[in-house]
Amino acid sequence: MSVVVVGSVAYDGVETPHGKVDRMLGGAATYIGLAASYFAPVKIVAVVGDDFAPEDVDLLSGRGIDLEGLERVPGKTFFWEGKYSADMNDRITLRTDLNVFAGFAPKLPESYRAAPYLLLGNIQPELQRGVRSQMRGLRLAGGDTMNYWIRDYRDELIETLRDWDFLLINDSEARMLSGEHNLRRAAAAILDFGPSALVVKRGEYGAILFAADCHFLAPGYLLDNVFDPTGAGDSFAGGFIGYLAERGVSAAEGAGDIRELRRAVIYGSVMGSFCCERFGVDRFRTLTRQEIEDRYREFQACTDF
Amino acid sequence: MSVVVVGSVAYDGVETPHGKVDRMLGGAATYIGLAASYFAPVKIVAVVGDDFAPEDVDLLSGRGIDLEGLERVPGKTFFWEGKYSADMNDRITLRTDLNVFAGFAPKLPESYRAAPYLLLGNIQPELQRGVRSQMRGLRLAGGDTMNYWIRDYRDELIETLRDWDFLLINDSEARMLSGEHNLRRAAAAILDFGPSALVVKRGEYGAILFAADCHFLAPGYLLDNVFDPTGAGDSFAGGFIGYLAERGVSAAEGAGDIRELRRAVIYGSVMGSFCCERFGVDRFRTLTRQEIEDRYREFQACTDF
Repeated sequence: MSVVVVGSVAYDGVETPHGKVDRMLGGAATYIGLAASYFAPVKIVAVVGDDFAPEDVDLLSGRGIDLEGLERVPGKTFFWEGKYSADMNDRITLRTDLNVFAGFAPKLPESYRAAPYLLLGNIQPELQRGVRSQMRGLRLAGGDTMNYWIRDYRDELIETLRDWDFLLINDSEARMLSGEHNLRRAAAAILDFGPSALVVKRGEYGAILFAADCHFLAPGYLLDNVFDPTGAGDSFAGGFIGYLAERGVSAAEGAGDIRELRRAVIYGSVMGSFCCERFGVDRFRTLTRQEIEDRYREFQACTDF
Repeated sequence: MSVVVVGSVAYDGVETPHGKVDRMLGGAATYIGLAASYFAPVKIVAVVGDDFAPEDVDLLSGRGIDLEGLERVPGKTFFWEGKYSADMNDRITLRTDLNVFAGFAPKLPESYRAAPYLLLGNIQPELQRGVRSQMRGLRLAGGDTMNYWIRDYRDELIETLRDWDFLLINDSEARMLSGEHNLRRAAAAILDFGPSALVVKRGEYGAILFAADCHFLAPGYLLDNVFDPTGAGDSFAGGFIGYLAERGVSAAEGAGDIRELRRAVIYGSVMGSFCCERFGVDRFRTLTRQEIEDRYREFQACTDF
C-alpha cells in the first residue's frame, strides 16, 4: 500500500572526516522516499527550483517514486551546507539557503489523497496539519519535527500531533517537547499529546519505541565505517513507514500490532545504517532488498540472548 | 563456584541532583562483590583502615562474602568525593584521599588460590598480574582498567591483558586503549592483545560484547529515575562474573559459551540498573534474586522483535 511523503527535496554540501561534497541530492523527503521505496510505492510532495537536475529526477523515478506532487517553480532548490565533527556525533550548519522552499505550501495531487500511509517530514506544523486533513481513509499517519518548531511553534505543533498515530524524533527533541529529562517520563508526556506510538531516535545508540504500556529497545547497528550520517534519521523514518505500509498495519488495530511496530523500528535502523555507508544518497543507488533482509537478520543475530 | 574479587573498598561522598551523602560505603570491590554475591560465593581482596565501620563489615558478610582477604591496616580507608552533572552523564572528582589504599599490595589468602573465577577491579596492572599468577586452576579471569593506567602504564597493562579471558571497559577507554575511534575496529585491536572477550560498557546506552567472530548488542535498561550512578559499572562487572561463575562457564570452552556470555552481559546490565536506583550500595540492602530474574525477563520483553 502506498505512502505519501511530504518534506524537503534539497541540495546539500557536506564535509565529514572522510571527504567533502560541494553539492549533492539531499532533503528529508528524498531520504524518506528512497528508503521507503524498498518496501512500498511512494508518492512525494515537495518543491524544487528550475535548477533541479534531470539525473536526480531519474534517481527518484528509477526507484518507482511518484513525482506528480514534486512541484517545480522558478528559482533555486533549497540548499544546505554542513560540516561534521571528527567523531561525527556533532555537526555545524555552514549555510542554509531556503530558496524556493521558503514558500513551500504542500499541494496534494488528487491521486495522492486516498493513499493509506502518510509520513510528514520536518516542516511547519500548520502545513503538516493541512496535508493530514486532506487525506481520506488513512490507515496510519505520523511524522517528524525539530527543535525550531518545538520552541517557536509549540501550540501549533501540539495541535498537529493530536491527529498523528506516531511521532519520530530524537532524544534531545523528546526532552525539549516534554520538558522531562528522563526518557520514560518524556515519552509518557508526549503520548498524552495524541500519538499512540513514539519512536525516539538516539543516533549510533539505536532507538526506543514507546507505546501505551510497553517500550522496545533497539540497539544501533555497529558500522565498520560511518562515512556520512546525513539523512540517516530520515532513512530510518522511510524504513519504518515503508515496512508498516508493506505489511498493511493500521492504527485501528492499535497495540495488537506492537510486534509489527518493533520490526518497523529495526527496518528503520537497517535503512539508517545503510545510509551512513556512503556520501548522501549514494548507498541507495546500489542497495538491494536482499541486503536489507540480510542486515535485518544480522540485527536478530546480534541481539538474541 | 566461587569468585575472587580484587579492588578498592572505600568511603564515598556523592552529590547527585537527587541529594548528597557525605560518607557512605563504596569502592569497586564492594560493588563487584555485592552484585556477584547474588549468583556465587564471593571472596574479597582489599585493604581498609582502622576507621572501617562494623556495620559495613556486616553488610558484606551478611551477603555471604568471604572477608579473609580484607586486610585492615592502621590509618584511614580510601576516600573519594564526587559530584554529578544535572543529567548525570558526567561527574567531577572533588577529592581523592588514597589513604591506606596508596600502599595496597593484594595479599591472597591460601584459601582463595583455588577459586575458579577471578575479577580484577581497576588497580595498577602489575598488581593485577601478580594476583592472576598466584591463582591455580582458573576457569575464567578478567577485569577492568581505566584511563590512567592506559595512558601511563600502557606496556604493563598490555602485558597483563595477555593472560585475561575478558576485559570490561567503557567506550572511551576502549578507544584510548586501541587508538581506534570506531568501536568495531577498537574491539578487534583489543582482542589481539589477548582476551577472548571484550565488554564495552556505554552507560545508559547499554553494552557491547565482542568475541572473535561476533558481537552482541545489549541495550541499557530504561530507568524511571536514576538516583546515583556511582558503582553501576562495577555492579555490571559483578553481575557478569557472578552469572558466569554460577553457570560454571570456562574459558577452555571458548566461543561455545558465547550464549552464556551474552546472558552474563544482560545480568550485568540488570545489576548496574538496580545499583542506580538508590544512593551508593543501598539498593543491595533489599534486592532479591527474584527481582533480578524479573528484570532479566523485562530485558527479554523489551528487546524481542
